[in-house]
Amino acid sequence: MIGLSSYAGVMESPMNSAQEQQPFSPLTNSWSTQQESNENQKPTSVGGFVLVHAGAGYHSESKAKEYKHVCKRACQRAVDRLKAGALAVEAVAAALIELEDSPFTNAGMGSNLNLSGEIECDASIMDGKSLHYGAVGSISGIKNPVVVANRLLSEAQKGKLSAGRIPPCFLVGRGAHDWAVSQGIPPCPSEKMATKFSLSAYKRNKRKMELAEKIDTGHKQTKKRRQSSENENGSGCLDTVGAVVVDLEGNVAAAVSSGGLAMKHPGRVGQAAHYGCGCWAENACNMNPYSTAVSTSGCGEHLIRTMLARECSAAMQSEDAHQALLEAMQNKFISSPFLASEDRVLGGVIVLRCCRCVEAQPSQNIQGILVEFLWSHTTESMCVGYMSAQDSKAKTHISRLPPGTIPGQSLAIEGGVCRLMSVVE
Amino acid sequence: MIGLSSYAGVMESPMNSAQEQQPFSPLTNSWSTQQESNENQKPTSVGGFVLVHAGAGYHSESKAKEYKHVCKRACQRAVDRLKAGALAVEAVAAALIELEDSPFTNAGMGSNLNLSGEIECDASIMDGKSLHYGAVGSISGIKNPVVVANRLLSEAQKGKLSAGRIPPCFLVGRGAHDWAVSQGIPPCPSEKMATKFSLSAYKRNKRKMELAEKIDTGHKQTKKRRQSSENENGSGCLDTVGAVVVDLEGNVAAAVSSGGLAMKHPGRVGQAAHYGCGCWAENACNMNPYSTAVSTSGCGEHLIRTMLARECSAAMQSEDAHQALLEAMQNKFISSPFLASEDRVLGGVIVLRCCRCVEAQPSQNIQGILVEFLWSHTTESMCVGYMSAQDSKAKTHISRLPPGTIPGQSLAIEGGVCRLMSVVE
Repeated sequence: MIGLSSYAGVMESPMNSAQEQQPFSPLTNSWSTQQESNENQKPTSVGGFVLVHAGAGYHSESKAKEYKHVCKRACQRAVDRLKAGALAVEAVAAALIELEDSPFTNAGMGSNLNLSGEIECDASIMDGKSLHYGAVGSISGIKNPVVVANRLLSEAQKGKLSAGRIPPCFLVGRGAHDWAVSQGIPPCPSEKMATKFSLSAYKRNKRKMELAEKIDTGHKQTKKRRQSSENENGSGCLDTVGAVVVDLEGNVAAAVSSGGLAMKHPGRVGQAAHYGCGCWAENACNMNPYSTAVSTSGCGEHLIRTMLARECSAAMQSEDAHQALLEAMQNKFISSPFLASEDRVLGGVIVLRCCRCVEAQPSQNIQGILVEFLWSHTTESMCVGYMSAQDSKAKTHISRLPPGTIPGQSLAIEGGVCRLMSVVE
Repeated sequence: MIGLSSYAGVMESPMNSAQEQQPFSPLTNSWSTQQESNENQKPTSVGGFVLVHAGAGYHSESKAKEYKHVCKRACQRAVDRLKAGALAVEAVAAALIELEDSPFTNAGMGSNLNLSGEIECDASIMDGKSLHYGAVGSISGIKNPVVVANRLLSEAQKGKLSAGRIPPCFLVGRGAHDWAVSQGIPPCPSEKMATKFSLSAYKRNKRKMELAEKIDTGHKQTKKRRQSSENENGSGCLDTVGAVVVDLEGNVAAAVSSGGLAMKHPGRVGQAAHYGCGCWAENACNMNPYSTAVSTSGCGEHLIRTMLARECSAAMQSEDAHQALLEAMQNKFISSPFLASEDRVLGGVIVLRCCRCVEAQPSQNIQGILVEFLWSHTTESMCVGYMSAQDSKAKTHISRLPPGTIPGQSLAIEGGVCRLMSVVE
């Protein structure tokens, strides 16, 4: 395994996992730091880096192309904002809007339908600079739930409301919808948010559920029903979306958005709206040498009960980023005492951590930010994309568990390193 | 300050803070371990301990009597369940029902009204044994929100639903209400949950808000409006309720319930429904020598952003319980970087931590559980009650910040010790 310490590139060092897969017993890992030789590229004052995911779940070969396209477009959106001088939190929201707008992802347009055939979305966003956070849960009739979460965040940053009332950081249901509309965010008829794909998945899932319940009733085996492991809908429908961003000032931000589990009960809120569970972002401070940002995907209840976003963020303060994430995913997720009764623990994370590095070319007043970016998942696959604002080339990748390993019990981990350079004036 | 190590009682050692207030500069604290001489009392196999709160906020002398009565009745309800052989999680739910049913507390009956004049409640419960958790947010028309949270917890413990669907741990709004009714929990017309007091408080707050907004508009000072510190409704209306319990097996459980901030936006969810923020319970395990249970009260947004319940629980693994809570309240709450922009940080916690102690009378096959119980708050006052199932005498107390200290910037901390004994057969 090539450690991060072996990295010596100057401008950027993205990984290409397909070329350098290095298994790491007893877990399934790959970690590579293939370098692009960008040493002749001139540093500018425009920069930043974005890493996005289109969910940890199952991405069939037939859908892979579209998922990659979505990730690429989302990276481009974030980088466009960064180039325009936006802070990390604005860029991460821009990436999320693109991901939500895709009918292929389980967020915003094309979200999973709940038990009643309705779309109810969760989303949250966190700004590592102010440490403010905004979230919406079980919101209907809004095309981009992340926009509402972001508005809650920015409104809370303005301070108290009239008569000293504290502004909310988390709104749900009808109240969230009405607040959004009162803020000028346009409503979107629910029927426009469903797609042919989500409607046919709903009908298929409904038939499957009715069949399963009929069999249970027939056999009068309530206990067996409860222990059923035929979580067919699980793997394929966990494709929550998210992103993590660092801007050239070194501020980090994270966001996540989800339509939730297929056939969920109306009113169910998953990890995407849960503080510490769906996303986390924290700039470096006296206590923490690294800025960290995390976004999660997978089975909401597993991610809530393990507070995976915050746990991974905290773990990333260790020296070896790869080892830290590996241990966090193994000890705080797969083997978590909070999920001791679960046979399969399904989830994935994207992680970004950064620190300033001034050693590059100090004589030329060039300073930089060392960005380490990683993803890890226990689901069959996870689709990610990443892009630096300095070379504007998006890379996309569908990470898969190695053949023969069991989803929910094994993990894959990959990542890379990128150095953002800027001229100090 | 008398440390816990100085305790040498055999059966029980409740504190009486009124008699032994020991200020601890620069914070305001008291900590006492006055002993009751119960050495002649025979140990039995029935036991357990409960600590409840009727909120951190402001408790006027005129209301003090009623608050204390409520706490006493809640303790009695929990102890009744413990004596009937119930586990901690059942006992804590019983205490909460009593607290919710009181028209004086801001939970269940008599909850604060929101901006639209409606009651929307949050509640959650956590079982330290299974580490399962259930929560409802922004739920209307249910007399006891904690009953729904508890049902979610127990349903989740039964395993998967039909077709492998994962049961929800958090439901909100209309969906939460409908699920509760489908589970046989009776609906309660919202108008029956409002009280004369909550309705008149709503009218008063509404007038105050309209006046504040009129002044703002008149002066066209939007910025000033935002920075207004006239949080008159804050202090008086934070009286969320909660409880922590240990049963004789040493299992811990915690619960919390709240009507939320007065004049909150519809759909706003506070800490009482937020995992890790409203309550936390974790039995001792290989990693943790102590079982811990925490329930919080105060400004929901402050308690969410600092994840105060979980932070306090984690801190309680340190040797000195009192010092650990003091440092957690100071460093993770009042001085938290997550609340750097807040001028006043309002909240309170009740904490229980336990470990087995076999040294008492090993020759007589008697084993025991050492229970340390504490409360701390930055609000003007906090009303608590506690009771051991072995002596069945409830103690109640209104803890206050010392005169001259500033709410939101100083804290009070008090507590005591109790030893539960049982015969090993």
